[in-house]
Parts: sequence; structure tokens; C-alpha cells
Amino acid sequence: MLTLHHLNQSRSQRVIWALEELGVPYQIVRYQREKTMLAPPSLKKIHPLGKSPVVEDNGLILAESGAILEYLQETYDPESHLKPQDAAHKTQYRFWLHYAEGSLMPLLMMKLVFNSLGKPPVPFGLRTLGNLLAQGVQKGYLNGQIETHARFVESHLAENSWFAGDHLSMADIQMSFPVFALLARGGVDNLPHLHAWKKKVEMRPAWQRAIQQGGPFEIPG
Amino acid sequence: MLTLHHLNQSRSQRVIWALEELGVPYQIVRYQREKTMLAPPSLKKIHPLGKSPVVEDNGLILAESGAILEYLQETYDPESHLKPQDAAHKTQYRFWLHYAEGSLMPLLMMKLVFNSLGKPPVPFGLRTLGNLLAQGVQKGYLNGQIETHARFVESHLAENSWFAGDHLSMADIQMSFPVFALLARGGVDNLPHLHAWKKKVEMRPAWQRAIQQGGPFEIPG
Repeated sequence: MLTLHHLNQSRSQRVIWALEELGVPYQIVRYQREKTMLAPPSLKKIHPLGKSPVVEDNGLILAESGAILEYLQETYDPESHLKPQDAAHKTQYRFWLHYAEGSLMPLLMMKLVFNSLGKPPVPFGLRTLGNLLAQGVQKGYLNGQIETHARFVESHLAENSWFAGDHLSMADIQMSFPVFALLARGGVDNLPHLHAWKKKVEMRPAWQRAIQQGGPFEIPG
Repeated sequence: MLTLHHLNQSRSQRVIWALEELGVPYQIVRYQREKTMLAPPSLKKIHPLGKSPVVEDNGLILAESGAILEYLQETYDPESHLKPQDAAHKTQYRFWLHYAEGSLMPLLMMKLVFNSLGKPPVPFGLRTLGNLLAQGVQKGYLNGQIETHARFVESHLAENSWFAGDHLSMADIQMSFPVFALLARGGVDNLPHLHAWKKKVEMRPAWQRAIQQGGPFEIPG
């Protein structure tokens, strides 16, 4: 049986969602973030990078969300419910699968890191200056970039009901983590289509089962 | 004819390399980084994200390195010279295509940003404290992460001549940018297989033609 190594409040939530959409039997091995919010060292016993998600399936040990979702689609979705068939939507599918972690998430991770420069474990005496530096980087570069990306994704969803066509696909599942993070910490207003897409996702029975399996899913702002 | 919108010293260098390996006719539209090292606003006329690489081909406008390389492979590589055929190497291929920008590059981008906290445009009076904060983040988190990833990639290349099997593939082309960045700014010693792989890359005639086309390629430390 397929095993998912699942870290709470993490990217592996979307692998549970994919498995629930596909109806693949699986078991979960659970890991809890440490006080630092980092993954526990025990994950390194499964994969040298010590990251989650990692899946084990028929002797294969695979990390990296995009690669895992593509593997699941090719292995467990023979009727291609979660991958579009026509060429134009396939190009979109591939784009969003790469864009989610290749372009959007790095900006939102950087936002999280800079938001934290005014908080512990940064020493008390440095926090005011930490905030000042963080505001400088955010105003000078980061906020503008995040706004550009938010408008880009919003305008795509204004014209498409799902990321790669008229149906849910792995592209939506891959985009769920960065879109939820964007809405939680991006600081960008007026994104009605992103909010509507998030609501559609949360109403899916497979998403709801995934939350029951994986635990509450609130991305820190 | 395929058009590549190319920014100097950027990720689009690897798209030129891919086109040269495949022997696809193409034209280059050139963009120069501004003094801030950011891309010029004129790139936004081509694609709303204002990024490079972007390719235009038969009416399609496509961004995101991983998606572009997969598109080129599927469109211009009918004999599959740049994609392995067997299942195990295909899984590796897919992994490295996602890992390059999804996991490795974000760490190296963050390294670049934190290295810059002690330099202009950070105001003179803040630079010492900027350095102090940067050192804290780097020692507490970033350097350890980069070391873990460097050892992981090194151990893969200790057992494989190329990233996905015995031949060059798009996985190598996608990994070239982060590996060059890792060797330039990662601060990790003793990576002989990464250095050997870089040398093999630089000896390829298609790489050398790509450098002639795209201009010198030195990733800032």
C-alpha cells in the first residue's frame, strides 16, 4: 500500500487531497513540526532532504510535490480525470505544475522570512531594526512582485473555472498551497476569483476527507 | 520561427542551451538587467510576469523554465534524445525538473538576498545590523539547508553520470542554473562530482554555442 509521510500544516496536505480525489488506498505516517516550525529530524530517515511530502510506493521513494502529483496521475488515473487531454490545456497544466513551487511559493516563503525578522528567535534588541530592514525589502521589491503575481493568477481564474480547463486537475491541487498562502499572507486586496476558487476547493468532498485525514490546515500569515 | 526573450545572466541561458542541443532554429530578443539587477519593465509587454525566459512559438507564449523545457522536448525531440525512456530514469527526470526551481533555487535566492542586507541599497547606518541579522538567519537555518541539499545532489552525481541516467537530458539543463549558483554562492566545500559535472557541461559544443549566443554566464556569489 502507498505510504505518505505527512507533516502537519504542510505541502503534503495536497498529496492527501490528490489521493482522496483518485480513491487510491494509502496509509499516513504523521510528523509534527517542531517549535521552530521546522520539520522534525526523523523525516531524514525517510529521505535525505528531510522534507514532506514523501511517498513510498512499490519500492519507490519520491519527494517534491510536483513530481509526486505527476507520478500519482500517471500511475493511478488511467482515465485521466485529473489531467486535461487537449493540447492547449495540457500546456497550461504543465505551466501551473511548475509555476506553483518554481515562482509563486518562493516569493511567499520570503515574505514569511521577512515578516519574522521582528520576532523571536531574533534577539529583542535587533527586532526594531529587523522590522525596518524587512519593510525596506518588502516595499522595494517583494510586495510589488507578489502583487504582480496575484493579479496574474486572478486574471487567469477570471477566464477559467479551474487552472487547466473546465475541470479540476492536478494543476489545481499543486496550486492550492501557494494560493492559500497568497490569500493568508500576500497582503493583496480585491482577488474575488481566487477567493471563489478557494471556496470551490473547500466544498469538494475529497478536500474535506483530506482535512479529516491530515488535520486542520491554516497557513500562517 | 521560435523566439526566445532572453535576459542576460539569467535562467534563459538554459533555454538557449536546450535549443542548441536540439538544433531548433530560433531568434533571440535581448534584454539587459537594470542597475538593480532586476529585469527591465519592457519584458512585461511580452508576458504579464515580466520574467525571462519566455518563448513565443506558433502563437503560444510560455514562461517558466521547467514548462518551457518540457514543451521543447515534446515538440522538437521526436527521437527523445533529451528524455530517458525507461520508467526509473523517467521518475528521476521528472523529479529533477521540479526540484531545480521548486526546492534548490529558492534557498540560493534567499542566500543572495541575505548576502545583500549589508550592501546598498540598504542605508549605510543599517548595514552592520543587516549583516548581523543575515548571519543569524544563515547560521540558524539557511546554511544547514544548503549543505543538506548540496550533499544530496553530490551523492546522486557520485552514482550517476547525468541527472537522469547515462545521457544528458532536460533534467541536466534544468539543473544547470541552480548547480552553477550553488557552486558560486553556496559556501559548501568538497563537491567533486558537482564540479566534474559542471566541467562536462561546459565542454559540450552546444553549451559553448549557447554562451556565444547568450553572452557570458557568471552567476553572482
